[in-house]
Amino acid sequence: MPRTPIPGVQNLIAVGSGKGGVGKTTVAVNLAISLARSGRKVGLMDADVYGPNVPLMMGVRATPHAIGERIQPIEKHGVRIMSMGFLNPGDKPLVWRGPMLHSVIQQFLRNVDWGESDYLIIDLPPGTGDVQLTLIQTAPLTGSIVVTTPSDVSLEDARKAIHMFQQVRVPILGLVENMSYLICPHCNERIDVFSYGGGKQTAETMNVHFLGELPLDPSVRIGGDSGKPVALGDSPGFTALAHEVERRAAEVSGAKRPVVEIED
Amino acid sequence: MPRTPIPGVQNLIAVGSGKGGVGKTTVAVNLAISLARSGRKVGLMDADVYGPNVPLMMGVRATPHAIGERIQPIEKHGVRIMSMGFLNPGDKPLVWRGPMLHSVIQQFLRNVDWGESDYLIIDLPPGTGDVQLTLIQTAPLTGSIVVTTPSDVSLEDARKAIHMFQQVRVPILGLVENMSYLICPHCNERIDVFSYGGGKQTAETMNVHFLGELPLDPSVRIGGDSGKPVALGDSPGFTALAHEVERRAAEVSGAKRPVVEIED
Repeated sequence: MPRTPIPGVQNLIAVGSGKGGVGKTTVAVNLAISLARSGRKVGLMDADVYGPNVPLMMGVRATPHAIGERIQPIEKHGVRIMSMGFLNPGDKPLVWRGPMLHSVIQQFLRNVDWGESDYLIIDLPPGTGDVQLTLIQTAPLTGSIVVTTPSDVSLEDARKAIHMFQQVRVPILGLVENMSYLICPHCNERIDVFSYGGGKQTAETMNVHFLGELPLDPSVRIGGDSGKPVALGDSPGFTALAHEVERRAAEVSGAKRPVVEIED
Repeated sequence: MPRTPIPGVQNLIAVGSGKGGVGKTTVAVNLAISLARSGRKVGLMDADVYGPNVPLMMGVRATPHAIGERIQPIEKHGVRIMSMGFLNPGDKPLVWRGPMLHSVIQQFLRNVDWGESDYLIIDLPPGTGDVQLTLIQTAPLTGSIVVTTPSDVSLEDARKAIHMFQQVRVPILGLVENMSYLICPHCNERIDVFSYGGGKQTAETMNVHFLGELPLDPSVRIGGDSGKPVALGDSPGFTALAHEVERRAAEVSGAKRPVVEIED
């Protein structure tokens, strides 16, 4: 399948995980906001059509309208957003089968007016299934980010996601270890709820870049549940992650196009 | 589609969730072990073909063999198990499309020698997609269990899962709130990492039974990561859950077949 570029989009970055519930959407949302806050033009495409949590986390419910044939994304917190949650709000599940999914994902990629964007972040559904495969085979991805927790169960699935990206030759910007540890709000002691260190170790073993660890911080969850992600305020973890992602995106783009461009 | 019974299987119970990573497999595994420890004959079918974590959590890697046309499940901790993880061990992802999935799920249901079982627990993949739909439409389910955490994001997806089961008229045995709270191992104070109480509240609002809350207990995660689930020892939470599930399964079976049977 051809990987046709999306006009105006400089970097297309997919955020995936083998396992759900590891904080993939939290990372995608806060990464998008961090990039926007540092002056980048950013789009966020919620490709998790069955469980689209981006609208809740971004605190926005709206119905996108079209100008001509082009669907207009919804802007919130400086980020242009498209999500199935805008088109199918409420609690009714989508029980679509594969082909309809492919069609909606292609529409989100091709028919949404993403405009001039430095980054379009795609929040993939968890796992290594149908939607993921179609998307990463047809989208001109700059690179991918894999999110895991330090638990063995999550790492087992993260390794599968890494293999999937490698199989289809999508550069892996790196692995993020989320929910690394919790600082007890009562006694300030550290609790390794989901174990510790497995992310870095897995990155080393599999020879992928380690993008860093993010603590299990109740304020991050509260930010997501309330539609005000922590990256809107001072969030050193996500700021550092955004820098790392920018650096890696430039690196793999440079590797693909070994032409030195001097910016004026 | 016909819901043909599985010979010898008394109760077929699906454990699902809208969102991944909420502890669905942890609940399925520990429920199966708790039921087995109380003398029930129990099978556990891992229907999460993309991220089959049951073998890791049950601490078993083995290749099932067939007797004639019948695939023999692998027995561990008193539970008969079948999982794609037995057939595709290691880190290579399955990137199958829909139809192949349906076929493997049907084989797991129909061609595995489950034998005489009081309970066959099915660990569904997270979400409300293709596999879930096919499975719950073709399997003669006694009922379903929906697992959530107390976070709004998880509850948003749990409501979708409840709607899905209701749409296809599968009785809902109840909603379980997992990772309800954490007791700090240092100061013994309670931390509501993922918020608190939303499970019970959602169950009431949606008029489904509330099966109880399970704490976010690092020993549960360690049990899963090490292949020795906590329900093998003294685990009041899962023992209580197993009792509740048995009671509810009898209740909905009774409702479906209003014939009083006197056991001798």
